Amino acid sequence: MKRPTIADVARRAGVSKGAVSYALNGQPGVSEATRQRILAIAAEIGFSPSRAARSLSGATADAVGLTLCRPARTLGIEPFFMELISGVEAELSARSYALTLQVVADQEAEVAVHRRWWGERRVDGVLVCDLRADDRRVPVLEELGLPAVVIGGPGGTGGLASVWSDDAAALVETVEYLFALGHRRIARVGGLPALLHTEIRTEAFTGVCRRLGLADAVTVPADYTGEEGARATRRLLSSAGRPTAVIYDNDVMAIAGLSVAQEMGLAVPGDLSIVAWDDSPLCQLVHPPLTALGRDIPAYGAHAARQLLAVIGGAPAERVQDETAHLTPRGSTAPPRAS
Amino acid sequence: MKRPTIADVARRAGVSKGAVSYALNGQPGVSEATRQRILAIAAEIGFSPSRAARSLSGATADAVGLTLCRPARTLGIEPFFMELISGVEAELSARSYALTLQVVADQEAEVAVHRRWWGERRVDGVLVCDLRADDRRVPVLEELGLPAVVIGGPGGTGGLASVWSDDAAALVETVEYLFALGHRRIARVGGLPALLHTEIRTEAFTGVCRRLGLADAVTVPADYTGEEGARATRRLLSSAGRPTAVIYDNDVMAIAGLSVAQEMGLAVPGDLSIVAWDDSPLCQLVHPPLTALGRDIPAYGAHAARQLLAVIGGAPAERVQDETAHLTPRGSTAPPRAS
Repeated sequence: MKRPTIADVARRAGVSKGAVSYALNGQPGVSEATRQRILAIAAEIGFSPSRAARSLSGATADAVGLTLCRPARTLGIEPFFMELISGVEAELSARSYALTLQVVADQEAEVAVHRRWWGERRVDGVLVCDLRADDRRVPVLEELGLPAVVIGGPGGTGGLASVWSDDAAALVETVEYLFALGHRRIARVGGLPALLHTEIRTEAFTGVCRRLGLADAVTVPADYTGEEGARATRRLLSSAGRPTAVIYDNDVMAIAGLSVAQEMGLAVPGDLSIVAWDDSPLCQLVHPPLTALGRDIPAYGAHAARQLLAVIGGAPAERVQDETAHLTPRGSTAPPRAS
Repeated sequence: MKRPTIADVARRAGVSKGAVSYALNGQPGVSEATRQRILAIAAEIGFSPSRAARSLSGATADAVGLTLCRPARTLGIEPFFMELISGVEAELSARSYALTLQVVADQEAEVAVHRRWWGERRVDGVLVCDLRADDRRVPVLEELGLPAVVIGGPGGTGGLASVWSDDAAALVETVEYLFALGHRRIARVGGLPALLHTEIRTEAFTGVCRRLGLADAVTVPADYTGEEGARATRRLLSSAGRPTAVIYDNDVMAIAGLSVAQEMGLAVPGDLSIVAWDDSPLCQLVHPPLTALGRDIPAYGAHAARQLLAVIGGAPAERVQDETAHLTPRGSTAPPRAS
């Protein structure tokens, strides 16, 4: 039950611990043949120069931190985060960086984790998700000087680096498409209202609907769960001038909306067109498959990780725009039935 | 852009670095009032005794490793892993342990990560998922002496600690329930055949069906994705003596199966009963909501994490049985229509 030590390598190689240290650090003092033999023995018994020792001297943790501030039940069901993490992870592991993950209850807890990670040198930098308007974490990260990349925006990221996607443009494209199909009563079931990108989408939705002269374009706020997606949909479909098309801020709520339509005896897409945001394999699991706004989320995560490693390496903090989500029409959208 | 050091604390407190060290380590040499003042200053500027320094002396990383050996597209869509991780994480963070995550391509890569983590002292122990019959990781972990808990079994875990759930019992209960409802043609869409728990379920399914005298009980192997779940379901529903009930090894494939029934004009549950394994919020998103086998997956993760911390602390490696999954009947199961 003991980890191999430098003494084990020295004993096996029949040299001093000092010689092992020279060999591992590439310093003079051992012949090339001995160096090769020592490296082979170290590899064989699984000894690596202690990361802790390197961390003390070189001051890097070779780890990146990610905190997720969502209830576990939401995290579990939404493909978005696991796809983002898999992209982050692919980039980090290619550069021998570890990903340290922590699920937190709120922004207070998140800020405390950032302080502790940085104080204890557990991470060299952090990725920040779920940006809020007037986000508490941004000034703290600036004050700490902890390298960070905010996944979100544009705006609200202070002096921190960020990678963002143009949600407003994607939403406008979607509403214009539904309008072109003939829809005049379009509603939206939104994500958590406190998040900045929800605000950006709501403003864009209101703006494009006003421009197109759509009077009753309403956004019903929800929390990304199936429960709230279903409740919001029931409310919309029970109203007098019920919408003929609904845009959902995530895939999970859109699927819940499809089930509510079935439960209420409405045909999709005949009576109701449905558009999901964050196209994921879930959207193609259901019948009919859902028209969705999508982009490459693992690539988004990899992009953020690359940017963070650059910032850790001393690159200036920039705001970088990632791909805009595009609409993939499937079986859940069509012209509205003449009524 | 600099992390606070012990010198910063000393300067602010107007004391020597030695005094700060005494105060932080609870050693005599400073008055209680000074100790309190030093601790307050350290907290204020975000200084903690370096984990790297503690790691060097105390030889703990205060981190636990988890490797996930699944393609990103499967990881993203299945709630199981995120639920497991949230449970692991809740237990670890309560004890100030970090979770280090790595997505790997195969068991070779996983073994290499274990060797590196342990050699570099990045983790104090690991959790092992997706146990296979004749698993390559078990002997390597035993050889390394790296504290580990296998999430899976029973059996196949060598001398390692494990936490497992009785899948065979849960499957037998399900088949007996469907039999009691009147079903005589029951099929199953299985998970990845290489995984040990798939093998355990397949044996249990074959055994109980033989005992009940169900002749055509077949397991169609699949890979947990919606694509393969749909394909397997189409094949089953296109066969001559098509089943009146299908059990799916995960939630995602069950939802895909429900869509195929809708696509082929079969009523659920009238023409086809559907049971999903790993009850998750996804099962209640669809219409009708799915009857499912479920248990508390975050608690399972927390259980595994607690056991790992005990093993790291020197406790003997035990095999601990967790809760057995229980059946929650919902709208997707009923007696078969007389045909």
